[in-house]
Amino acid sequence: MRQIAPPPRLLMGPGPVDADPRVLRAQSAALVGQFDPWMTRTMAETQELWREVFVTANEQTLIVDGTARAGIEAAIVSLVEPGDRVLVPVFGRFGHLLREIAERAGAEVHVIEAEWGTVFPESVIREAIDRVRPSLVALVHGDTSTTMAQPLDGLGAYCAERGALLYVDATASLGGNTLRVDELGIDAITTGLQKCLGGPSGSAPASFSPRAVETIMGRRSVEAGIRGEGDETAQNRIRSNYFDLAMIFDYWGPKRLNHHTEATSALYGARECARIIVEEGLPATIARHELAGRAMLAGVQGLGLAAYGDLAHRMNNVTGVIIPDGVEPDAVRGAMLEHFGIEIGTSFGPLHGKVWRIGTMGFNARKDAVLTTLAALETCLRRAGAAVPVGGGVDAALDEYAGS
Amino acid sequence: MRQIAPPPRLLMGPGPVDADPRVLRAQSAALVGQFDPWMTRTMAETQELWREVFVTANEQTLIVDGTARAGIEAAIVSLVEPGDRVLVPVFGRFGHLLREIAERAGAEVHVIEAEWGTVFPESVIREAIDRVRPSLVALVHGDTSTTMAQPLDGLGAYCAERGALLYVDATASLGGNTLRVDELGIDAITTGLQKCLGGPSGSAPASFSPRAVETIMGRRSVEAGIRGEGDETAQNRIRSNYFDLAMIFDYWGPKRLNHHTEATSALYGARECARIIVEEGLPATIARHELAGRAMLAGVQGLGLAAYGDLAHRMNNVTGVIIPDGVEPDAVRGAMLEHFGIEIGTSFGPLHGKVWRIGTMGFNARKDAVLTTLAALETCLRRAGAAVPVGGGVDAALDEYAGS
Repeated sequence: MRQIAPPPRLLMGPGPVDADPRVLRAQSAALVGQFDPWMTRTMAETQELWREVFVTANEQTLIVDGTARAGIEAAIVSLVEPGDRVLVPVFGRFGHLLREIAERAGAEVHVIEAEWGTVFPESVIREAIDRVRPSLVALVHGDTSTTMAQPLDGLGAYCAERGALLYVDATASLGGNTLRVDELGIDAITTGLQKCLGGPSGSAPASFSPRAVETIMGRRSVEAGIRGEGDETAQNRIRSNYFDLAMIFDYWGPKRLNHHTEATSALYGARECARIIVEEGLPATIARHELAGRAMLAGVQGLGLAAYGDLAHRMNNVTGVIIPDGVEPDAVRGAMLEHFGIEIGTSFGPLHGKVWRIGTMGFNARKDAVLTTLAALETCLRRAGAAVPVGGGVDAALDEYAGS
Repeated sequence: MRQIAPPPRLLMGPGPVDADPRVLRAQSAALVGQFDPWMTRTMAETQELWREVFVTANEQTLIVDGTARAGIEAAIVSLVEPGDRVLVPVFGRFGHLLREIAERAGAEVHVIEAEWGTVFPESVIREAIDRVRPSLVALVHGDTSTTMAQPLDGLGAYCAERGALLYVDATASLGGNTLRVDELGIDAITTGLQKCLGGPSGSAPASFSPRAVETIMGRRSVEAGIRGEGDETAQNRIRSNYFDLAMIFDYWGPKRLNHHTEATSALYGARECARIIVEEGLPATIARHELAGRAMLAGVQGLGLAAYGDLAHRMNNVTGVIIPDGVEPDAVRGAMLEHFGIEIGTSFGPLHGKVWRIGTMGFNARKDAVLTTLAALETCLRRAGAAVPVGGGVDAALDEYAGS
């Protein structure tokens, strides 16, 4: 068998999208021992860079080694004890994932649901908190399954007043949408690299407020094999070793207690993702996503297509496109991939076969990527028999860029 | 902050060690969408390559996205239900880790211990199986904390006779020591890339026998959000979503049910690790480790140092060296790193400050790496005040290579 040789692709689906080439190169740097002074310094630098991306002063800002859902599970299983009440507002597929993970962690999970394509009014979440009195409120910020972003203003303060912690899954939104962790009073947040952050799936940056850290450290149990004097085993020990954030904090912190062996290549990639954003400037990165998203929306509308969902609450980085009648959904997607090497997304559950999802995120939140996708989409729609205005997509998108 | 620029290092500790440059390069290849036909074909190729490294026909041979201990936890939490009896023979630190993970999974764990530096006679494990009547026997093959490798012959058949499954943690041994999964009757095995396999930490190749798969699929629960008709939730659902191997099988298998988003860069690296071994030929890879380990052992003995533990059962890829009296352990290690850029390992627990661990594994199971390390060690010992025979290390190692 031969060495890897991926075909050229432009990934304009809901993620993963193309990684920034600088991130890919960083991943090919040579390894260094896990307690080498250079390595521990690099881990500390990585933490510092991610604090800037999360807009937080949280000491416990670090990388969980695994995909985005590894970060979600680490947060939930470390914060939740069996029997704890958890409130999960669900407005798309990934809210169901949070529910599922909390249930498996033994929580008593209470769900409220918003119709797909909408978000919750703040009052509805507040009423549910008052009713359920959860110890944790867990919700998705931007759910790519519906392209919606839930407004979070005021929620952190309300949770704190009511004695709940607030966990936010920012896998799909961070870096492409405004999300300032400390200002919003978020206690726990996790993400992945493969959406707006310019990297591959496989690392889960995460950050935890002092309140969350107190809860987690109350369950601290140093593992057998490296346990020292005074290291007790908590009665309410975290159910997972790999996702035991108390041990992960001790590994990333000054104690440098051995836990897993840090995934060094992935760490290099995660550091580079944050470094690139800090270099561009986080507000500029978000503005680039806002503009690319606006151009894509104008473009698909310019092709005569309708956009899905409550556009006032859409994420910047993914656009839902209602598939026109008479067009075979997978045939158009297949033609985009076969002829142009461009990937756009299908949908889950109730939207499957009804909505395409087009991403404009991370390295691909770029004018040329937006225009190329729209030009290819026009061609593939036309050849599938749809009536599309000639140049209607690229012209509308170019107008957005010209006016920006 | 600047781009990553690691200092040159020769990593001759117990792992992680330097990755093969081909693996690092593979990790910088461009990303492809997770359900792109090329991507699913690449996943299938990766499975095929790892079957060759594990020497197995197991269909369920795949990569768990996370470090080696992610693989361990996935295996144990998917195989063990709360209250199940698990037998863990412990002969070093990583046996304690298996115990710990099984306890957190809710198992009733029974431990037998062998003195550090020794392994179990087969009869002792058999007696424990008869006494405990476990549903799972979980043990480490090669435990780098003591440099010992537990012989496994006959154990799989004995477990099968007694109705137990056999899980083996081969993180530190696979690729450097003979370990033929099907011949040994192993039901579940996991590893990491950062020891003998030539890659970085962050991926956990794993393989499961039909018997193990049957147990795991008996607990299958498709997650909310993608559940279809006829997908029931098992009463004894696996406690973790991320480590739910039934869902991971469905993701890697023909159903391609979405679970995590595959860590594509890491997948490329894991594929390349196996590809390189298959290209070299697994027996040649193991022989290279055997020779490098023998040369390192002869070398440290040629420097007048004693090797640690029961040498009849040592791993090929890591040598324990008893630190001579009067030598400050960390000063010598520090000088190796500072002056030569060479890392050798300290030890955990009872061996800390008493034993250095020198690895000869993966890309570094090479003559030049062995000789360079011995030459540097001679210098650092001499300058630390130890009486060492001039050239005693490199000459003995060269003799081993000449005689090979």
